[in-house]
Amino acid sequence: YYMTMKGIVARTSTEALSIDRKNRTVVCRNLATGELDEAPYDSLVIATGALPVMPPVPGADLEGITTLQSMRDADYLRRVRDEKKIKRAVVIGGGLIGIETCEALQNAGIAITVIEMMPQLLAFLDWELAKLVENHVRENSSEIITGNGLAGFIGKEGKLTGVKLTDGTELECGLAVVAVGVRPNSSLAREAGLAIGETGGIAVNEFMQTSDPAIYAAGDCVESTNLITGKKIHAPYGDLANLQGRVAGENAALGNRATFPGTIQTGICKVFEYTAGSTGLSERAARAAGLSGITTVICAGADKPGFMEGELLITKLIADARNGRILGAQCVGPGDASKQIAIWASAVMAGRTVDEMVNADLPYAPPFSTAIDHSIAAAHATQNKSAGRLKGIPALEVKNKLDRGERPFLLDVRGIDEFSETRLGIGETLMPLETLRQRLGEIPREKDAEIICYCAVSLRGYEASLILEANGWNRVSVMEGGIADWPFEKEK
Amino acid sequence: YYMTMKGIVARTSTEALSIDRKNRTVVCRNLATGELDEAPYDSLVIATGALPVMPPVPGADLEGITTLQSMRDADYLRRVRDEKKIKRAVVIGGGLIGIETCEALQNAGIAITVIEMMPQLLAFLDWELAKLVENHVRENSSEIITGNGLAGFIGKEGKLTGVKLTDGTELECGLAVVAVGVRPNSSLAREAGLAIGETGGIAVNEFMQTSDPAIYAAGDCVESTNLITGKKIHAPYGDLANLQGRVAGENAALGNRATFPGTIQTGICKVFEYTAGSTGLSERAARAAGLSGITTVICAGADKPGFMEGELLITKLIADARNGRILGAQCVGPGDASKQIAIWASAVMAGRTVDEMVNADLPYAPPFSTAIDHSIAAAHATQNKSAGRLKGIPALEVKNKLDRGERPFLLDVRGIDEFSETRLGIGETLMPLETLRQRLGEIPREKDAEIICYCAVSLRGYEASLILEANGWNRVSVMEGGIADWPFEKEK
Repeated sequence: YYMTMKGIVARTSTEALSIDRKNRTVVCRNLATGELDEAPYDSLVIATGALPVMPPVPGADLEGITTLQSMRDADYLRRVRDEKKIKRAVVIGGGLIGIETCEALQNAGIAITVIEMMPQLLAFLDWELAKLVENHVRENSSEIITGNGLAGFIGKEGKLTGVKLTDGTELECGLAVVAVGVRPNSSLAREAGLAIGETGGIAVNEFMQTSDPAIYAAGDCVESTNLITGKKIHAPYGDLANLQGRVAGENAALGNRATFPGTIQTGICKVFEYTAGSTGLSERAARAAGLSGITTVICAGADKPGFMEGELLITKLIADARNGRILGAQCVGPGDASKQIAIWASAVMAGRTVDEMVNADLPYAPPFSTAIDHSIAAAHATQNKSAGRLKGIPALEVKNKLDRGERPFLLDVRGIDEFSETRLGIGETLMPLETLRQRLGEIPREKDAEIICYCAVSLRGYEASLILEANGWNRVSVMEGGIADWPFEKEK
Repeated sequence: YYMTMKGIVARTSTEALSIDRKNRTVVCRNLATGELDEAPYDSLVIATGALPVMPPVPGADLEGITTLQSMRDADYLRRVRDEKKIKRAVVIGGGLIGIETCEALQNAGIAITVIEMMPQLLAFLDWELAKLVENHVRENSSEIITGNGLAGFIGKEGKLTGVKLTDGTELECGLAVVAVGVRPNSSLAREAGLAIGETGGIAVNEFMQTSDPAIYAAGDCVESTNLITGKKIHAPYGDLANLQGRVAGENAALGNRATFPGTIQTGICKVFEYTAGSTGLSERAARAAGLSGITTVICAGADKPGFMEGELLITKLIADARNGRILGAQCVGPGDASKQIAIWASAVMAGRTVDEMVNADLPYAPPFSTAIDHSIAAAHATQNKSAGRLKGIPALEVKNKLDRGERPFLLDVRGIDEFSETRLGIGETLMPLETLRQRLGEIPREKDAEIICYCAVSLRGYEASLILEANGWNRVSVMEGGIADWPFEKEK
């Protein structure tokens, strides 16, 4: 026991074994001495956090396998880094923690392979944006295997020597970091008879109060409400745990007065030079939640002007087609995606619509943003799409068309220099935008020929589509995000 | 005349002399040949911008005096910089343009004095935050004179040699940049009989349509609606001009359908290592608009964790005391104030309240923010103040008390090391927070003695105030923003 400057008795090295709700005591064990005693309470706050999931596969007890949850795990990885003995490691799981671990170990000189069972990294992103992050991770020398799970660990003399995947592949490695997710650590609450939600998290009301009015809970051990779908979810985010803790603490001390309404699941991570963030629903999550009538737009652009060394951002915006309400946004790239996601999170929390966001009064000066902020440009594109002016087609759909053997007329309207430097090589025709009006004769004569326009980010591609439509072509679309959002191989 | 890639006829070097509304033509003069002709229109958009104000003082025609409005002005200043002949310059006006000019010329090796007639720089900030910016500009070797206006220019043989101020001071200089503001360039519209607002800007409705339905106007030549006060204002911001232009253009081409509702006057600038931004109303603007019942809080903190090289931010939040609605926010400091202002601008636009902002679901990861984002911490402080838990007192009020000869008990609760490194030296007593409970005997015995607590940013100061209140003292307050927001001289 010791008295901190806050006048709080903090019992460390103490395990809470059980809660006696009738007598309002917690049975504790002193981990140093083994002694048992009881701590009485008027109000109790449970903050037991989450536990990392360890897949039930053979070999999980070999030396060289760790999760990344505790200080001990972090110390272990730091030691591995400093000892420089291990040259190859496998990270199981391509979520936030897996990707951040991949970056840290790769930067420490360890060759990394990330294994992800799902078809993509970072499940909070839709496929095409996740693919851009995947390409970036590969450019930084890490290997990535998606759509393939962990079958087991292989070892020799008690030490890890490799990882076996569900398709039979074996990867040699001296270290495996398992980061396939966490589950609420709610067993203490469950054993005390408190209500547990379907997600496995402790059920709490908006006061962070459990089914026992004298007991509150907060953080990764509880379940939260998704404010868009109204569904209960497990949302283990560090910032939400802090906000919930303030509410639970205030209510436990003073009676119910503060509330925590829920989350829109805003998340962000840094991976090498890229930032990847998301708020609200992805397109996949929106469709999974049964929402129909969704408008999506992918918009690429710079976070700042070129003379301020602006960097690329690619945003996918998801809106309700009926009323224009913003349902979610994702943003990836080397630019300042953090501000973009903060803007969209504010919009989603406040129930703002696309029509409101097109006139957002954001702070503009060249060191901080373009005159039309990237977020507003994305709102403009969404409005243009809803109005039928912008007929967008995602890169994935273009690729699928080509793979099916369809042969739309592909029109790259960038400059000759840009084309010679980088190009898709998917059978496109180069016709710089400023020459298009003079070269309409080179476009397929049939007015119902399918034409797909694009450029670096598809702003000029959009203008090209308007020119073609004004000249009578009626199946013209724009590849959203242009070459910046082309997640597949390029000719050069 | 030439045809651009957009198919637009762009007539450069052409002055629009007058608008013949009856015949729907614009009388134009070719500035190269002097020829007059008429350009017919169905719809017209006026985008004549603003003109810099030049005070009517003697000597304004001397060589070496410029505004900063046109490309020619910029080229002139660039030449001055490159020639390296002028060693001293005076900038008249401490607004956005004045401050940015000061930074650019100072960085080019020219010694700068900024003259501001008002008692502070950057009128969009309240005094105490503007003072922090002023201190920072001074630390970067520029001189600043506030509360003193321009009386005239002094010259020799047609060339500027100095500037004379209203109090008689004369400053030697070879260059004077006049940046005392702009006024709408609305004379063409005025002469055509279009309605002009009290601000001098062209009056437009939400469709950006003037009093003549066939004529639209956008940008620095129009007046806008302040969305909080409902009042008409002149808001010459580059981003708003772009948004208005999109609305005016769409409506002029397609008929009224797009709207621009108005502005909350969000602005930002970079000056040396500081960013200074504002959105919505300052405290001064709120009071000037007749709003009473205002809650204000000043909150200092880091934009990111220390291990991510977080930098200081100081935010002043202004809320409606009746319903908690956010009326405005200002943020200055070396940290990422741009994201903070974007968050608050989103909140003000959406009519969000303090109680809603305390649970904002923003993107958190250590490279991007603290677990409780600085904006949320400011909302927490405002909520604590509204609930009567945090009794804040601004630094300016503390200074006024001391200047009046009052002697409150001033309690600095930082650590001994911090105190030896920097301290206010205003008669304070050092009592590190962790020792406070043991040293209550050193606090004035009278329970109604006035006690003012503070620390580096006044988080520990807040805890100290709670401890003292719990022990019976009933006139305890916390100096908002702590030492970080102390704008006056320090002992060290």
